[in-house]
Amino acid sequence: MCRWIAYRGEPITLDQYVTNPSNSLVAQSISALEATASVNGDGFGLGWYGEHPEPGLYREIRPAWSDENLRYLCRHLRSHLFFAHVRAATGTPITRVNCHPFASGVWLFMHNGFVGGWNRLRRRVEGMIPDRLYPSRVGTTDSEALFLSIMAECEAENPVDAAAKVLRSIKVMVNECGQPEQFRFTASLTNGADLYAFRYAVNDRANTLYFQERADELLIVSEPLDALKERWTEVPEGCALIAREDHPIRLQPLNV
Amino acid sequence: MCRWIAYRGEPITLDQYVTNPSNSLVAQSISALEATASVNGDGFGLGWYGEHPEPGLYREIRPAWSDENLRYLCRHLRSHLFFAHVRAATGTPITRVNCHPFASGVWLFMHNGFVGGWNRLRRRVEGMIPDRLYPSRVGTTDSEALFLSIMAECEAENPVDAAAKVLRSIKVMVNECGQPEQFRFTASLTNGADLYAFRYAVNDRANTLYFQERADELLIVSEPLDALKERWTEVPEGCALIAREDHPIRLQPLNV
Amino acid sequence: MCRWIAYRGEPITLDQYVTNPSNSLVAQSISALEATASVNGDGFGLGWYGEHPEPGLYREIRPAWSDENLRYLCRHLRSHLFFAHVRAATGTPITRVNCHPFASGVWLFMHNGFVGGWNRLRRRVEGMIPDRLYPSRVGTTDSEALFLSIMAECEAENPVDAAAKVLRSIKVMVNECGQPEQFRFTASLTNGADLYAFRYAVNDRANTLYFQERADELLIVSEPLDALKERWTEVPEGCALIAREDHPIRLQPLNV
Amino acid sequence: MCRWIAYRGEPITLDQYVTNPSNSLVAQSISALEATASVNGDGFGLGWYGEHPEPGLYREIRPAWSDENLRYLCRHLRSHLFFAHVRAATGTPITRVNCHPFASGVWLFMHNGFVGGWNRLRRRVEGMIPDRLYPSRVGTTDSEALFLSIMAECEAENPVDAAAKVLRSIKVMVNECGQPEQFRFTASLTNGADLYAFRYAVNDRANTLYFQERADELLIVSEPLDALKERWTEVPEGCALIAREDHPIRLQPLNV
Repeated sequence: MCRWIAYRGEPITLDQYVTNPSNSLVAQSISALEATASVNGDGFGLGWYGEHPEPGLYREIRPAWSDENLRYLCRHLRSHLFFAHVRAATGTPITRVNCHPFASGVWLFMHNGFVGGWNRLRRRVEGMIPDRLYPSRVGTTDSEALFLSIMAECEAENPVDAAAKVLRSIKVMVNECGQPEQFRFTASLTNGADLYAFRYAVNDRANTLYFQERADELLIVSEPLDALKERWTEVPEGCALIAREDHPIRLQPLNV
Repeated sequence: MCRWIAYRGEPITLDQYVTNPSNSLVAQSISALEATASVNGDGFGLGWYGEHPEPGLYREIRPAWSDENLRYLCRHLRSHLFFAHVRAATGTPITRVNCHPFASGVWLFMHNGFVGGWNRLRRRVEGMIPDRLYPSRVGTTDSEALFLSIMAECEAENPVDAAAKVLRSIKVMVNECGQPEQFRFTASLTNGADLYAFRYAVNDRANTLYFQERADELLIVSEPLDALKERWTEVPEGCALIAREDHPIRLQPLNV
Repeated sequence: MCRWIAYRGEPITLDQYVTNPSNSLVAQSISALEATASVNGDGFGLGWYGEHPEPGLYREIRPAWSDENLRYLCRHLRSHLFFAHVRAATGTPITRVNCHPFASGVWLFMHNGFVGGWNRLRRRVEGMIPDRLYPSRVGTTDSEALFLSIMAECEAENPVDAAAKVLRSIKVMVNECGQPEQFRFTASLTNGADLYAFRYAVNDRANTLYFQERADELLIVSEPLDALKERWTEVPEGCALIAREDHPIRLQPLNV
Repeated sequence: MCRWIAYRGEPITLDQYVTNPSNSLVAQSISALEATASVNGDGFGLGWYGEHPEPGLYREIRPAWSDENLRYLCRHLRSHLFFAHVRAATGTPITRVNCHPFASGVWLFMHNGFVGGWNRLRRRVEGMIPDRLYPSRVGTTDSEALFLSIMAECEAENPVDAAAKVLRSIKVMVNECGQPEQFRFTASLTNGADLYAFRYAVNDRANTLYFQERADELLIVSEPLDALKERWTEVPEGCALIAREDHPIRLQPLNV
């Protein structure tokens, strides 16, 4: 069970949400409030958009709370759209390439959840990644496989339909296991302009997901960063949050 | 606030106490029961005696709970006397050389506690390390400086008197600060045959310390490794546990 | 281009060959003599057999030359059969799970070489791993995929025939690429009793392989550990070295 | 023997000099041309100035050549003044806090060289660091101790005189050793506006130092980044390069 935040708005330094708030993401790495695993110390990552055509990535296997590089980078990196993630591993190794966010071209993705029975289902899920994208599978997590599968569908569909299509396939797989497995998918996806988030589960409660919109600023989080609960709106289970550039934010049931 | 265990007895593989028990040291790394810092994820270390004249050391900056090397080593390393330690840093950097145990010649040392006001007192404490031992100061912790200071006194004194002498000096230092500082010292020291442990504090409660003796086996721990509390004896504050080779174990007030 | 050594004989501490000789494996990590990549600084690993039914593993992403843990472990670990490997990565990430040796049950494997066109061939090679062994694919290297494929064949064949069968399949694959790819396979495999080594290449020269037998001691290496070249016998290209327990060593052409 | 570059000029992304040139700093990490240690694989670091009042730092113990984070950061970090350094350790541990550059307030410092007989002289050199700056001594290198000693002198002197004063003290120390020790100091210092570099040695040849000035751009390096040797000017031994903001660059003999 991981924790993450996604930000889009005026360019700001990352420390404003990653390290400064009372329940900042780094604070959540050592003690999350709404998570079943209260420690998220199995690595972390930042992904951000700047002037380079592709997003930047900084991923580390150390806990976020003790990484001095992270503090310096959060003070100095300025971005209009960034992802930050602290990991609690669910079985796959603690390596940088297994840390979120994942990147593919201009896209970034991060995930809180898991595919139950991964050892048995992995090969079928990896089979959803087309040959063209398979060299991008540099790690071994369920999350990266889901991401690349969605990327494949994005060629023909909009990202929400692409994600729904992949979720449908996974739903079939976990239900086809002798004993049905759980599947949780609270995730975010972006191309640097449009921002999407998903809250979904099969055979289980979905992991929490909140957002906050103020002026031109959108913040999407696993759990609120402060005690001002009235400012945060919960995304209902089974829904996608769609925040296309220059369009109003809307919630839409996932057609799974 | 760290957690540690010391074992002396028949040669056993380290997994028997480091990874296997319900509240094993590795379990304590992610969730200690009696510690103020419930996560001890700032590195860890093993020190053990074998056939080589000097003890072995394995120290890592990753959390103990996710280190696959640690699990292999604990299954394969067999020793009649070993130390294991999980760290919760109190200000000094997360580096291997700042992880416990520390070694000097045949001696090993590990510590749970801190010297309050370390930034102001550090130079005075380091001044207690003689030139001869100063090249052994490879890290920057208060713990390593205490160890090397005790090693210096061990030339003229027995280890318990040597430790008491150093504790007296530190007591003076923390009380001479404008506002008295705290000092906690729950530590263990060994030369591979004799085993010593200390529970002491100035201006504060001392960190917990327990031991268990069964047949030829002595186990000294920060907190019990299982729920069989009746098997564990608490070492009183201000006391040393003295377990010299071929002598009965005894508790002795520290003459500080 | 990696470097490795395999030892079988009287139980010895690992430092005797890993760290002590003039051209020890650790010396080769910073400056190999016969390799195209003269630096092998992309991680390293040890695998060894002791009293535990499964072999031990110690793998790290730091260069071997600066790892103080490695020096302690090599002094203290004693084994009758061990593997040691320093890595020069050929494109896959620097993670512990991508470092050699690889383990599966009682088996250990390590490799110097590569499958050319890995990005295109990876999926086909991974397809050779049966479902039963696929959960053991914890990394992403060509080497680990070759190992698990050989493991699969070992159920029906002896290890040399199993390896030859896999090599034949890879040979077909690299030659079916639009432009034929290279494939180099200088590897060692053991179950803790029998020891095998292979020197083979397709569309290329094979990486070097030497061995030395003295009394009950067998040493197999990528390159000699000392200047006494007359003591070392080169394994011819296209050959397997077969050292079954309690049988004389023999060289046998690989039937690929 | 380390390698480093310092840049001041129009804000650029760091990749332009750290990763892109044929003999870029990252290329030098695996194979330097003018260094006695041809591999600089014992960690690396970046220091840069941006909008935050204090410079940023990114330091890692892995070799620069295989750090994917470094490549992302160099593409995305834009600065008018930055330092980059690849390390070949001379005896002190491989830790992040022992990697260059070092920071103190607005100042950055990096060094190629060593104080001979460091084990014997360390305490005397550390004695030059005033109490006020001693908490900033977070590592154990000779380089950091030199830096903090110079910082202390900078309160009363300009940086070049401050450095010369410290070099004089070290010169006395290395010559007072029973057998005179060597001392090499090829270093750079900046406050984010003024840039200084030094090339000096006692009882030895000084490590190389070059610079290149084009339009408003100043580049100072351990060794040229390309084969256009005529573009690079060597700084003579015993000299400081002084590049104060809005003043012409000048070379000045060090008054040691």
